[in-house]
Amino acid sequence: MQKSNLFQFVCESAKQAALLSTAADTLEWDERTGMPHSAGDYRAEQVSYLRGLAHQKLTDGRYRESLQELLEQISDETASIPFAITISKLHRDLQRNTKLTTQLVEQMAASTVRGQQQWDAARKSNRFCDFKRILNEIIQLKRESAELLRQGTEKNCYEALLDEYEPNATIEQIDQLFSALRPPLVDLIQRIQSASKRPDPTLFRRNLSLEKQKQLSLHVAEAIGFDFKRGRLDETSHPFCTTLGPNDCRILTRYDQNNLGTGLFGTIHEAGHGMYEQGLPEESFGLPLGSYASLGIHESQSRMWENQVGRSAAFWRWITPKLQDLFPKQYANVGEQEFYFAANEVEPSLIRVEADEATYNLHIIIRYDLEKQLINGDLEVDDLPDAWNLRYEQDLGVKVQQDRDGVLQDVHWSAGLFGYFPTYTIGNLIAAQLFSKAEESIDHIDKQFSRGNFQELLNWNRIAIHRHGQSMNSDEIVREATGNELSTDFLVNYLRAKLETLYQL
Amino acid sequence: MQKSNLFQFVCESAKQAALLSTAADTLEWDERTGMPHSAGDYRAEQVSYLRGLAHQKLTDGRYRESLQELLEQISDETASIPFAITISKLHRDLQRNTKLTTQLVEQMAASTVRGQQQWDAARKSNRFCDFKRILNEIIQLKRESAELLRQGTEKNCYEALLDEYEPNATIEQIDQLFSALRPPLVDLIQRIQSASKRPDPTLFRRNLSLEKQKQLSLHVAEAIGFDFKRGRLDETSHPFCTTLGPNDCRILTRYDQNNLGTGLFGTIHEAGHGMYEQGLPEESFGLPLGSYASLGIHESQSRMWENQVGRSAAFWRWITPKLQDLFPKQYANVGEQEFYFAANEVEPSLIRVEADEATYNLHIIIRYDLEKQLINGDLEVDDLPDAWNLRYEQDLGVKVQQDRDGVLQDVHWSAGLFGYFPTYTIGNLIAAQLFSKAEESIDHIDKQFSRGNFQELLNWNRIAIHRHGQSMNSDEIVREATGNELSTDFLVNYLRAKLETLYQL
Repeated sequence: MQKSNLFQFVCESAKQAALLSTAADTLEWDERTGMPHSAGDYRAEQVSYLRGLAHQKLTDGRYRESLQELLEQISDETASIPFAITISKLHRDLQRNTKLTTQLVEQMAASTVRGQQQWDAARKSNRFCDFKRILNEIIQLKRESAELLRQGTEKNCYEALLDEYEPNATIEQIDQLFSALRPPLVDLIQRIQSASKRPDPTLFRRNLSLEKQKQLSLHVAEAIGFDFKRGRLDETSHPFCTTLGPNDCRILTRYDQNNLGTGLFGTIHEAGHGMYEQGLPEESFGLPLGSYASLGIHESQSRMWENQVGRSAAFWRWITPKLQDLFPKQYANVGEQEFYFAANEVEPSLIRVEADEATYNLHIIIRYDLEKQLINGDLEVDDLPDAWNLRYEQDLGVKVQQDRDGVLQDVHWSAGLFGYFPTYTIGNLIAAQLFSKAEESIDHIDKQFSRGNFQELLNWNRIAIHRHGQSMNSDEIVREATGNELSTDFLVNYLRAKLETLYQL
Repeated sequence: MQKSNLFQFVCESAKQAALLSTAADTLEWDERTGMPHSAGDYRAEQVSYLRGLAHQKLTDGRYRESLQELLEQISDETASIPFAITISKLHRDLQRNTKLTTQLVEQMAASTVRGQQQWDAARKSNRFCDFKRILNEIIQLKRESAELLRQGTEKNCYEALLDEYEPNATIEQIDQLFSALRPPLVDLIQRIQSASKRPDPTLFRRNLSLEKQKQLSLHVAEAIGFDFKRGRLDETSHPFCTTLGPNDCRILTRYDQNNLGTGLFGTIHEAGHGMYEQGLPEESFGLPLGSYASLGIHESQSRMWENQVGRSAAFWRWITPKLQDLFPKQYANVGEQEFYFAANEVEPSLIRVEADEATYNLHIIIRYDLEKQLINGDLEVDDLPDAWNLRYEQDLGVKVQQDRDGVLQDVHWSAGLFGYFPTYTIGNLIAAQLFSKAEESIDHIDKQFSRGNFQELLNWNRIAIHRHGQSMNSDEIVREATGNELSTDFLVNYLRAKLETLYQL
C-alpha cells in the first residue's frame, strides 16, 4: 500500500476506536448522572464490550503492521512534522496496548472493579483490614504490568506506571522537584499557623440554597470561557470532566448546602479541564494531535483557573456583588476582602480533596513516597496505615484517628492508579509557572478579572497549550510557553506573595 | 459444531448486537435530553458506527450459516419450544436485514435524515412544496425496499413495510377492522357534538407550575407501577420510551405550563410502554423471548394505562385530592366529576396528537388510507395535501387552513415510517379488548383504582402479555388473553358506555 493510504488507514482506525471509546465514555457519564439503580450490571457489560472493541481496533494485525511500516519511514529530519508525531505517538500507545497480555488486562479489570467495591465498603465500615487482600492483589498485578511495560526501556517499575499519565517523567525529576518544594511549603505553613490574623472560618459554611449555587456555577463557568454550546455542566458525587466528542465536553461538580467552596471551586476546576479539551484541535479529534499532552498539563489548566484565578483578589472583586445579590441574607454585608481571605484559608488537615493550596502538595508528596515504596516492595500493605499516619503527623502535624480519614480516603489505589498522584502536584507547579508568564504577557490582568473578563487569559492558554495537542510533550510545552524548565520557584513565590500579605507574615 | 454450540453462538451474537444497539440508544437518549447544541454531527457518527457494527454482527457469514443450519432442525413438533421460536424469529430478522442491499440501506438513512430536516423546515415555514421532492424520494426508496422485502412472501408492497412494525398483519385484516370501527365512531362523535352537556374546556388549561407538574408525573408513574429502580423519567420535546438494558427503561414526557393533560397523559402513556418493557423476561434481553411482540401490543399497553385507566372515573377519584393539594389556587374547588368529564372532552380537531379517544382513530384511518395509496402509486405527492384536506372535512368535519396543521403535522413519513400509523389504532383496539377481560378477572377494579392501587391490573398484564415476549405473536397473545379474535366491539362498547353517560346521550 502507498504510504498515504497506510497513514489514512491508521488514522481511520484510531478515529473509529475513538468513536467506540467516546461511546463508552458517554455511557459512563450517564452512569454517574442518574442511571437507574439496578442498571449497573448491564452497563458494565456494555462499557467493557465497547472498550474491548476499541482495544481490538488498536491492536489488530493490519493496524500494527501499518504502523510499523510507517514508523520505519520516519527519519530524524521528519520527526517533528505532524505525520511523524502522529505515527510515533500511536506507536507508543500500541506498544503499551500490546505489551500487556490479554489475561493480565482482564485480571486487572476484574481486580480493580472488586477493588473499588471493597474499598468503598472498607471506607464505610472504617476497616482497612477488609481492603488489604485486594490491595495486595492489585499491587501484585501492577508490578507484573510494570515489568512488561518497562521491557525495552530504561525505566524502573514505578516509572513504567507513571509513564501512562505523565509520559517520560522520571523518578529523579519528580524527587528533585518534590524535595525542592517541601521545605519552603512547610516553612510557609508553619508561619501561617502562628499568624494572629485569620480568615472567618464560617464565611464559606453558611446555608446556601442549592438552586442558587447552581446558578452561580453556571454563571462563573460561562464567564471564564467554558463553551456551553459545546458542553454542559451537571451534578455528580465525585466531580470530573469527560469529553464525548470534539464538540461535547461534560463537566460535573457537586454542591454542598453548607459549603460555598465545594460547588464553586469544583466547577471552576472542572471548567479549567473542560476549556483545555475545548481548545484542542477539533479536526484531530481521536488522534494524538487532538489529545491532551499529559495529566500534569491537564491539571495545570484546572488548577490555574481554580487557584490563580478563582482564589485571586480580582476574581473576588468581580464575584462579590453577585454573591451579595444571590444570597442577600447570608452575604449582604460581606466584602470582597473577607471573601478573598476566606477563599485562601490555610489549615493542615487530614483530607486531600479539601486541602488548601499550600498544604495540598504535602498530601501528594506523602502519597507519592508511599506508592513508590509499595510498588518497589519496600513497604508491605500490612504496614501501610502506620506509615501513612506517621507521615501525616510528621509532614502536616495532624493525627489520623481513623483509616477512613487516612489511608482509605482516596479511590486511586483501589482502581489501580499507581503513578497518578504526582501529576496533581506537577499540575500545580506548571500552573504557577504558566500563570506567572501569562501575567507578564497580559496587560492589567487583574483589572480584567475584576471586570469579569477572562478571555485574554483563555486565549493565552489556547495558544501556549491547547492548540498543540500532543505535538509537543509536557516539558517542551512548559519550556516554549515560559522560557524555563519546570521549576518549583513559581509556585513557592506565588504562594508566598499571596499568603504572606493575607496573613501579614 | 454441535447444535447446542451453534445455538449458543447465535444467542451470543444477538446479545452482543444488543450491547451495541442499546449503547446507540443511550447516545440517542442523551441527544434528546440536553446534549450540547454543537455535538450533533459527531453524535450521528457515533450512532451510525455502532448501528453498523450491530448490523454486521447480525448478518455476517458465520451467523447466517449457523442460523440456517439450526433452522433446518426445526420440525413442526418442535416449532413452539423456546429454542425454535428464538431461531425462527432471529432468522426472520436476518432475512429482513439481508434482503435490503447495503446501498439501499445507506440511501434510506441519508434520505430520511434529510427528510426529517426538510420536513421540520417546511412545517415551520408552512410550505409543503419544500417537502415534496424529498418525500417523493423517500417513497421511491420505500417502494424499492418493499419490492425486495416481499420476495418469497405473499405480501404486497405495503404489507411488506407494515410487517416491520406489526408482523404478519395484512391489509385485508386491517381494512376489515377499520371499516367496522369507523361508522360507530362517526355516529358517536356526531351525537356528542350535538349534546347540550359539555365539560369545562378551561379546566385543564390553567396556569400550572412546571415543577409541580413534574412532581405529579413522578407520583402517578410510581403509583401505577413504573419501577424507578429500573428506570427514570425525563423531559424532552417529543415524548418517547427507550430501553437501554434489562434494568434500564427511560421514559420521557413534556410539560406545558398551560395544559395539565400534556404532561400527565404523556407520562402515563410512556409509563405504560415502560412497564411492558420492564415486564419482559430479563434473562432473554436482546433475544426474541425478551423483546416486545409487536408495535400494536406495545401501544395497547400505553393506551390502556393512558385511557382505560387515566381517563376513568376511578382514577380521577384517586388523583383529585392530590391535584387540589398541589394546585390549591387553580383546583381547590374542582371536584372529581368535573376533572373526569374534562379528561374525556371529545372534539373533532386537526391535530392527531391532541385528539381525544373517540376522534383519534379517525386521524389514523385517514393516514392509513393515504399512505397505502402513496406506496401503491394511486396517489401522487403533488395531490397529497388536497387529498388530506378533503378527508379531514369528510371524516372529521374540520377544515385544514394551513399544511402545518394538516399534512405536515407528523414526522413519520419524513422518517420513512410507512406502515407505522395503523399500529396506533390496532393498539387502541387491543387495549380495549384486554381491559374488558381484565375488568372481568379482577374484583372491584374501580375501587382499587380509586384507592391508588393499580398493582393487580399490572400483574394481569404481566401474565397476559409481558412475560411472553415474542413467544407468541400479537394475534395469539390477544386470543389467549381474551378468548377472542381481535375485534372492534370492545373499543366501541367501551367508548359508548363512557361517553354516552358523560354526555347524557
